[in-house]
Amino acid sequence: MKKTDLLIIGGSAGGLLTATAARKLYGDIKITLIRKNKKVMVPCGIPYIFGTLNDTSKNQIPDALLSNAGVELLIDEVVKIDRDKKMVITADNTEIEYDKLVIATGSLPIVPKFIKGYDLENVFPIVKDEEYLKDILEKVKNMSDIVVIGGGFIGVEFAEQMKMAGKNVTLVEVADKCLWQAFDEEFSSDAEEQLKNNGVIVKTKTKVEEIIGDTKVKEVKLSNGETIKADAVILGMGVSPNSVLAKDAGIKVNEKAAIIVDEYMRTNDSDIFAVGDCTEKKCFFTGKNTPILLASTAAMEAKIAACNLFQLKYVRKIKGTISAFSTKVFDKAFAAAGLTERKAKEEGFDIVIGRASTMDKHPGSLPNTGKIDIKLIFAKDTGIILGAQISGGDSIGEMVNILSMAVQNSMTANELNTYQVATHPLLTASPIAYPINAAALDALTKLNK
Amino acid sequence: MKKTDLLIIGGSAGGLLTATAARKLYGDIKITLIRKNKKVMVPCGIPYIFGTLNDTSKNQIPDALLSNAGVELLIDEVVKIDRDKKMVITADNTEIEYDKLVIATGSLPIVPKFIKGYDLENVFPIVKDEEYLKDILEKVKNMSDIVVIGGGFIGVEFAEQMKMAGKNVTLVEVADKCLWQAFDEEFSSDAEEQLKNNGVIVKTKTKVEEIIGDTKVKEVKLSNGETIKADAVILGMGVSPNSVLAKDAGIKVNEKAAIIVDEYMRTNDSDIFAVGDCTEKKCFFTGKNTPILLASTAAMEAKIAACNLFQLKYVRKIKGTISAFSTKVFDKAFAAAGLTERKAKEEGFDIVIGRASTMDKHPGSLPNTGKIDIKLIFAKDTGIILGAQISGGDSIGEMVNILSMAVQNSMTANELNTYQVATHPLLTASPIAYPINAAALDALTKLNK
Repeated sequence: MKKTDLLIIGGSAGGLLTATAARKLYGDIKITLIRKNKKVMVPCGIPYIFGTLNDTSKNQIPDALLSNAGVELLIDEVVKIDRDKKMVITADNTEIEYDKLVIATGSLPIVPKFIKGYDLENVFPIVKDEEYLKDILEKVKNMSDIVVIGGGFIGVEFAEQMKMAGKNVTLVEVADKCLWQAFDEEFSSDAEEQLKNNGVIVKTKTKVEEIIGDTKVKEVKLSNGETIKADAVILGMGVSPNSVLAKDAGIKVNEKAAIIVDEYMRTNDSDIFAVGDCTEKKCFFTGKNTPILLASTAAMEAKIAACNLFQLKYVRKIKGTISAFSTKVFDKAFAAAGLTERKAKEEGFDIVIGRASTMDKHPGSLPNTGKIDIKLIFAKDTGIILGAQISGGDSIGEMVNILSMAVQNSMTANELNTYQVATHPLLTASPIAYPINAAALDALTKLNK
Repeated sequence: MKKTDLLIIGGSAGGLLTATAARKLYGDIKITLIRKNKKVMVPCGIPYIFGTLNDTSKNQIPDALLSNAGVELLIDEVVKIDRDKKMVITADNTEIEYDKLVIATGSLPIVPKFIKGYDLENVFPIVKDEEYLKDILEKVKNMSDIVVIGGGFIGVEFAEQMKMAGKNVTLVEVADKCLWQAFDEEFSSDAEEQLKNNGVIVKTKTKVEEIIGDTKVKEVKLSNGETIKADAVILGMGVSPNSVLAKDAGIKVNEKAAIIVDEYMRTNDSDIFAVGDCTEKKCFFTGKNTPILLASTAAMEAKIAACNLFQLKYVRKIKGTISAFSTKVFDKAFAAAGLTERKAKEEGFDIVIGRASTMDKHPGSLPNTGKIDIKLIFAKDTGIILGAQISGGDSIGEMVNILSMAVQNSMTANELNTYQVATHPLLTASPIAYPINAAALDALTKLNK
């Protein structure tokens, strides 16, 4: 019988960071991490295997992060959690006693069983497993026609990377716009334009009726009557929590199979925590369940859990998920934090919008200067920021994190109008046109009415 | 007799933004801006005229910003403010009545009259005037040996740009390190290394004893006994408030000649505001006077003034200057916000440091990935952030603005440890190693002791 102080099931962002943070916080306790995969893929890096990286081994999270932190790594699968004995049993028949257990079993891709042909050869759900992904990479090398189903971040990123790898790519999205959950129409349209201008065929408001082929996929039949040649189909239709192990042990899950946790990531068993994609997420603004599964959210939850494993020590202040995103579509980056205008209105907020456009260096005559467009959404009566969307060059990848912080601090248009920034000709917009300040002033003039 | 509702003296960041913000806020009032210079130089862009831009005309702030905002522009000089008559008199002998007056007369470079030879030909203080700068640019084109006196931001940026333009450059700084006011030793040493590795000769702990020449500078004599060949000398020894006009009108100035203002940028005359380099700055942490003159601070003050010109409408929440900086030294960027470790200790804070190093993309195998080093300084008992320093690629230009916001919100290590960010392979560090979160955790483990 093995014994450990902290046992973590799952080795992606949530599990890994729980382990390394716990090591920093608790000194020489025994920490054990069990995972199924020999190697762990950087989850958000997976689309880039198929273009920019062109190699799965370049997308590994190094195990040195664990060994350097003195975390014992077991490549195995937990098949049962015995809560009474505070013990897990693995596929290898190893029994491991724990003091605290953290479930970080992640998510699995949604496979659309309602679409005929979903199980044909070369129809690929995106599973975070190196061997599996390496096999896809090998197979698509000699293919020319790729259909991507689903226009969320994964779908858009796969479409972009497959195009960069020289394929004919068709992206099919059932909603009005790609990336519609994260962005309002003006930004999602712009992202779609980037795809189209670079040769990706984008079909929105379109369903896949059937995936056609004998053993292998040959064509995809769409709701508009078209049939598209397809050597492979990439499924980017979202993910769902991987919580079977927890549920079987009597850990409570919600109707979407997400493990129910309190604000300190504790399940209904106070010795068992859960973090990452397998757990329920609450919206920062409404407390409602929100199905936004992100590695960055998993990382935040891992730290909350790690900090409070043995007693509640670090009071959690931000009670819900901000939904902060960024992506890059060919040369243009897009990012968002908080509620979209559409979502804010759906939730019943009376809002005011502030906008600004500016260059991302100053003077604009400097080399590689690009344009930034920003939209800020404020609650009308209080002026509190509800959400932000930005597009531009790579610098918006961090600018959105300013806005994520503004949301987390419930800052107002008044505060953001005069929030102090560092500016530099080669690195940022001009101080007289800094986009967050400028969009906040734009909103103030309307709040004032 | 001309009449205007809002008269602004000075056309750089502070004056310009006061004008355009007032237009957004007050609709169709009459706004007049008087400035001496025919064209306005982007102040922070001036060093880049001498390398990257190689042209003064590429460094202009476009007057369209004023004309598009319906601001009347007068190229003239105010020679007297008559407060009793609420009127100014210009060099052209125009009299202009105002309802509200904003003084944004900026700063002038410090000229070291204590150094013999300071007034030789080709010894150049950096005056923000296009004709003057164009003349320097022409003259240095055929020169090979440049000595820059002063290792602050302006001096370092001039040294870098002159080197990029192919000159032999020696940078002389009296203190132990270049950029010592903004950075602690580990970061300022790194910036110096960047200069040295790229061929700039850096002489710290070194005074200039004499600038030698007949009519033109030929050599610079240093306190270490060395004499260096110099075709030109660039003076980067700081700036001082340009407040003579205000002082002559009985506006109160402090012992450093900075115009004394209240939190809403009002002088002792309630119809006269002052913004930017000509005004007194207070430290965010101590309320003490702090001589940090930045265009970004001027911009913030301009907005505070504009928002509160006719009545106090927008309550100021951030009462002092954060001192947020960024710069780039060849390929590496450096940024800081708040207090340095040295300054925090000098002020009497009991502090804890958190550090982290990570790659700025993930996986690190992606092209153009660079390293980020971050240092966060927290007050030990409360965990409140006091300051931050970062070095790395261009993305830190916006990352420092996250930290500037964290300082302005008095966020704690606990909050920053789990502050939610958007991450993306091509744009940011990994969520499991996001540097602000990671450095905050590092500090927490020490706060905990």
